[in-house]
Amino acid sequence: MIEHRICLSRVVNPRSVAVIGASDDVGKFGGRVIHYLIKHGYPGRLLPINPNRATIRGLPAYPGIGTVPEPVDVAILAVPVAHLLRQVEDCAAAGVGACIIITGKLADAGAEGAALQDRVLEVARAAGMRLVGPNCLGIFNMTDAAMLSSSLVLEAERVKPGGIGMVSQSGALMGTLVSVGLHHGAGFSRCISVGNQADLELCDFLDFLIDDPATRVIALYIEGLKDPARFAPLLRRARAAGKPVLCVKAGRSAAGAQAARSHTASLAGSFAAFEAVCREAGAVLCDDPAVMVQAADALDRLPRLPRAGMGLAVIASSGGSTVTTADMLPAHGLRLGEMAEATRAELRRWMPESHVHLPLDTGSFDDGTSEDGLSACMRSFMADPDIGAVVVPMTTQPAMAARAALFPELCRQGGRPVLFVMTAAEVGDAARQALRAADFPFLDRVADSLAVLRALEAESAGRDRAALPPPERPPGAGPAPALPGGALTEAEAKSLAAAYGVPVTRGVLAQDADAAVAAAEAIGFPVVLKGVSRAVVHKSDLGLVKLNLADAAAVRAAFAALPDIPLDGVLVQEMARGEAELILGARHEPGFGPLVLVGTGGVLVEVLRDVQVAPAPLRPADAEAMLRRLALWPVLAGVRGRPALDVAAAVDALVRLSWIAADLGPRLVEMDLNPILLRAVGGGAVAVDARATIHGDDA
Amino acid sequence: MIEHRICLSRVVNPRSVAVIGASDDVGKFGGRVIHYLIKHGYPGRLLPINPNRATIRGLPAYPGIGTVPEPVDVAILAVPVAHLLRQVEDCAAAGVGACIIITGKLADAGAEGAALQDRVLEVARAAGMRLVGPNCLGIFNMTDAAMLSSSLVLEAERVKPGGIGMVSQSGALMGTLVSVGLHHGAGFSRCISVGNQADLELCDFLDFLIDDPATRVIALYIEGLKDPARFAPLLRRARAAGKPVLCVKAGRSAAGAQAARSHTASLAGSFAAFEAVCREAGAVLCDDPAVMVQAADALDRLPRLPRAGMGLAVIASSGGSTVTTADMLPAHGLRLGEMAEATRAELRRWMPESHVHLPLDTGSFDDGTSEDGLSACMRSFMADPDIGAVVVPMTTQPAMAARAALFPELCRQGGRPVLFVMTAAEVGDAARQALRAADFPFLDRVADSLAVLRALEAESAGRDRAALPPPERPPGAGPAPALPGGALTEAEAKSLAAAYGVPVTRGVLAQDADAAVAAAEAIGFPVVLKGVSRAVVHKSDLGLVKLNLADAAAVRAAFAALPDIPLDGVLVQEMARGEAELILGARHEPGFGPLVLVGTGGVLVEVLRDVQVAPAPLRPADAEAMLRRLALWPVLAGVRGRPALDVAAAVDALVRLSWIAADLGPRLVEMDLNPILLRAVGGGAVAVDARATIHGDDA
Repeated sequence: MIEHRICLSRVVNPRSVAVIGASDDVGKFGGRVIHYLIKHGYPGRLLPINPNRATIRGLPAYPGIGTVPEPVDVAILAVPVAHLLRQVEDCAAAGVGACIIITGKLADAGAEGAALQDRVLEVARAAGMRLVGPNCLGIFNMTDAAMLSSSLVLEAERVKPGGIGMVSQSGALMGTLVSVGLHHGAGFSRCISVGNQADLELCDFLDFLIDDPATRVIALYIEGLKDPARFAPLLRRARAAGKPVLCVKAGRSAAGAQAARSHTASLAGSFAAFEAVCREAGAVLCDDPAVMVQAADALDRLPRLPRAGMGLAVIASSGGSTVTTADMLPAHGLRLGEMAEATRAELRRWMPESHVHLPLDTGSFDDGTSEDGLSACMRSFMADPDIGAVVVPMTTQPAMAARAALFPELCRQGGRPVLFVMTAAEVGDAARQALRAADFPFLDRVADSLAVLRALEAESAGRDRAALPPPERPPGAGPAPALPGGALTEAEAKSLAAAYGVPVTRGVLAQDADAAVAAAEAIGFPVVLKGVSRAVVHKSDLGLVKLNLADAAAVRAAFAALPDIPLDGVLVQEMARGEAELILGARHEPGFGPLVLVGTGGVLVEVLRDVQVAPAPLRPADAEAMLRRLALWPVLAGVRGRPALDVAAAVDALVRLSWIAADLGPRLVEMDLNPILLRAVGGGAVAVDARATIHGDDA
Repeated sequence: MIEHRICLSRVVNPRSVAVIGASDDVGKFGGRVIHYLIKHGYPGRLLPINPNRATIRGLPAYPGIGTVPEPVDVAILAVPVAHLLRQVEDCAAAGVGACIIITGKLADAGAEGAALQDRVLEVARAAGMRLVGPNCLGIFNMTDAAMLSSSLVLEAERVKPGGIGMVSQSGALMGTLVSVGLHHGAGFSRCISVGNQADLELCDFLDFLIDDPATRVIALYIEGLKDPARFAPLLRRARAAGKPVLCVKAGRSAAGAQAARSHTASLAGSFAAFEAVCREAGAVLCDDPAVMVQAADALDRLPRLPRAGMGLAVIASSGGSTVTTADMLPAHGLRLGEMAEATRAELRRWMPESHVHLPLDTGSFDDGTSEDGLSACMRSFMADPDIGAVVVPMTTQPAMAARAALFPELCRQGGRPVLFVMTAAEVGDAARQALRAADFPFLDRVADSLAVLRALEAESAGRDRAALPPPERPPGAGPAPALPGGALTEAEAKSLAAAYGVPVTRGVLAQDADAAVAAAEAIGFPVVLKGVSRAVVHKSDLGLVKLNLADAAAVRAAFAALPDIPLDGVLVQEMARGEAELILGARHEPGFGPLVLVGTGGVLVEVLRDVQVAPAPLRPADAEAMLRRLALWPVLAGVRGRPALDVAAAVDALVRLSWIAADLGPRLVEMDLNPILLRAVGGGAVAVDARATIHGDDA
């Protein structure tokens, strides 16, 4: 156990800061650091270190950190990499609490740099000194006016304090996101660039922000988690604390590119696992960093959505902007609200019946869009049981600023989010200024407002999940039979499934044609023959599967036609039929734990990639929610007069599989049930093929 | 034939403009119109009309249009609707060439307004006077400094002349788009708000812009086409003139909402028809108006993509911004380029081998991102055979403006589009200013740059199509047999398909069980029975289809089990098998002509909505391109070791169906071949079900 000299809150809010390599020249890193500290009003002790100057920016300069006559909470180092180790050693010797190392070309630049980084960490660890970075851009602490950074975003006149706490593995991206936030009038508590995370890492600061009274919303830019197992528990703790967490995770596109042996490994890769863990723990995963910061601002400064799944109202004075906004909703997974009669009645007071619909064009108001009418319509929207939020895509119009200024109070009264979009550019600046003055967020692009709403929707769904009881084991689910390590045969994989109550096709392993015919007669025709070999993963690709054999002669003919490869036997199975094919899968993701997957099965499985992944074990409601998110869902629910399928049976099979994953834990490399045939309501489901791989050791 | 007093170029570029209701008060519409004309330097004769003032803005005012002693090319009317007719009558009497009517509450506000609009049009027509509007925002003619509008976007200091011509059915949206364009440094030729299109309509101005030397790119906001038949020929004329056309079409989301009788009508609705016509004619359809204007600017001021289907380079100094940009590509249908060895060799000169990959982080440069290195990498990208364009998502970094200023010349030299994104907000303004000064476009959001690239990709694909020869009729395609009006029976629909060489299942219509058994024996078991009735569209929903009947007994049993409803007979058919199910469809869209559709067939057809629509007739290459755009394509091409399917047979069937659509023209209400079973290569395709509806008359 390392005894640290300083706690995280002192790293973020130091009473004293030494700037190694301080300079009067703002063209230099050390010059910018001290400039920004002064410019943004750092209230603590500021200690420039420079062996060649007596004063810097009017402050007494010290020749080295060892000569500073007072305690130093934080030293900021933006020194050439060749000098870094010596400087860190000096800081350690001088009793510095923590070093923020802006210097790069350490572990980010190959093996030599990594070795140096290790050495730096060793020195710090030995002394109980904390490190932020290296290769980071430092810390912006807006709450306490401590800008411990050389980032050019600090050229901004003022960095507004507020509720958004950010941790980022990219310093430049963090600077950009703060700049975008400031444009929109967003306020930040602390923004921490963690760089190479030699010592302090993203999860440490996430942990800190959860308890930080100044932070109301947390935004994370993640490239890779140092210790994935810390992440989900922290997300759950943040949710319990009422603090939404948003994140962008780099590497989404690479995830799909890896060739993978099983469907489940390819479809539930590490990005899918990350996504599943975020959903389960109530965190909001965004694609676009710029959307993340705007969504964080909306969560900080606007009311939250009452609950997930509600519709939207779209209202503006331009028919063109309302219609094109409405057209963009489906691509964002959003919909217009179904207005209640009371809402319609209110709208009728202001406009002809023919215009009483969403999206609402206020240009149709009988009185020419009076403030009274606009306010009355907004109020009725925000009392409507199916309208969760209002989007206002304002185009150029008279009195934009005055009109915009109505919305903060309407939003406050209504208690639902109002996404105000100033779609014009500079000509809309007066409206933007009015909203900044009212401390009310605005967006510049309709597409952003919809992406933000999607994030709010995810936050809301995550909140709804927090109240659920823990999953319960269904009767007869387990225990697992004894299993060999390595790839299981189909029969072994099916017996594992059966031990948890997942229905599988009846089958008998036969070693010759006579035994196969006897087995077929016992099972009942038609049957399927499957050549079984531990060496073969995709049987049908090798001609090892013979379907729909109607009589003994057909069984004999099929047996004879099996390809001449070494087989462990021939499985004779009932020929099951169903109305739809699902794939169910399970695997263990290191750091994230057991996962289950469900998707459209059969030949389309890797084409459509219509899958949902979730951490195991599942509640029945979780399993049903996964099925409902599939593109295939309408088929399960009974599309176009076709029978509704036995969703309850699919839910049950998925829940039971999730307990296999939960019980086997890291022993389960992966398991596929593909396809599972689903029949009409009451007809149940049955897995017709199964495969699984088990870790050889019992670890 | 109406004799017009004035040609369109005079409406857009009038020598003299009368402002009805002119005022010194810029709070009034008429005050703003004259203010903006003066402010933006209108060089022609400016004639204020106001009975109560001797001068306005220092110009002599006239009490009425009839008292103006000189010819008036254009009068602008922003008068109360109650006075409109009288003012238009006065203009007609005074010999005015055209009226731009800003006044609203005409056809946009119900039947009474529509009647007044008709009366206004009648007056204008009788006099040969043209109308723009009513309910429009007028015309911005940047090329000739004639701002004939009251739009508040004209508050901008300067409206930059340039190559973008715009026509919009929403005035407010047009103002907003001009504002967005000006922010990005885009220049416009003419922007025309057409309002209710009483007389002059969108296609008139599209026609004008195609011949307009000042216009290089055309952007359209369309709510509904007055005469759809004009549209596609104009798009083709624009392409021939080398002028890309971009459009946003309102009503996309509503299109899918209409309940429809056949799959084809529901899947190939009017929005899909519009989309198909745009693709065929090389126009670019955008979802987001703000993306449209930025894409238009890119087409105006950047080199075009060399050809469709190339990859991208992403390069910036922040690993975070390059990685998140790369992650966003797949969702936009884009991909990174595969760098050629020559490109890799150039990159190796500047950075360690481990960093030689796309996206490229210039933070990894050995020399700290020198301008030389950046320029060399950019040049090698733009010479790479697989890199069509470069995206530069700049975050906060030192010397942003100087760095940004490198790109215009690099882009000019390289001859490929460079999408420069300034991802920071105000702190990036110096970089924006540098690019405006260099007349080079920039974007503010990575998501915008990718949406713009998608539009550039569509423009490029449209250009590639222009060189194709006209479709040729395949041998044996037609003529059509005599057809009754109304819904055809399956047998009639199949004989129509067969007359064009589309393979259909063999079948015999039987009236009793004995005849069915005899037919089955002639066809060969197993067979299918289908109860046939002109009154039934979806046979399987009523239990009228009995599959896989293996012998005579099964045929008799199935015949007896048919539901007791009046039937035209029972079709006995071969039981066809295939590896995949397609739907093929055809219909006639008024104004757009014959269309064909292909998609994933069977039970998933309306769930997945995996369909492609195109105008008929098709070339084989068109048909194959449609198949390649399906989500199902990997199944057709042979996914995961499964056999490649007979794509040539699917192409042939689709081409032949397209000639049915082309030959029947408006007589064909709709035709579905669903499913068509596709077998492995060489196995062909066969339509197992068919339905069609024919217009009763021969019109």
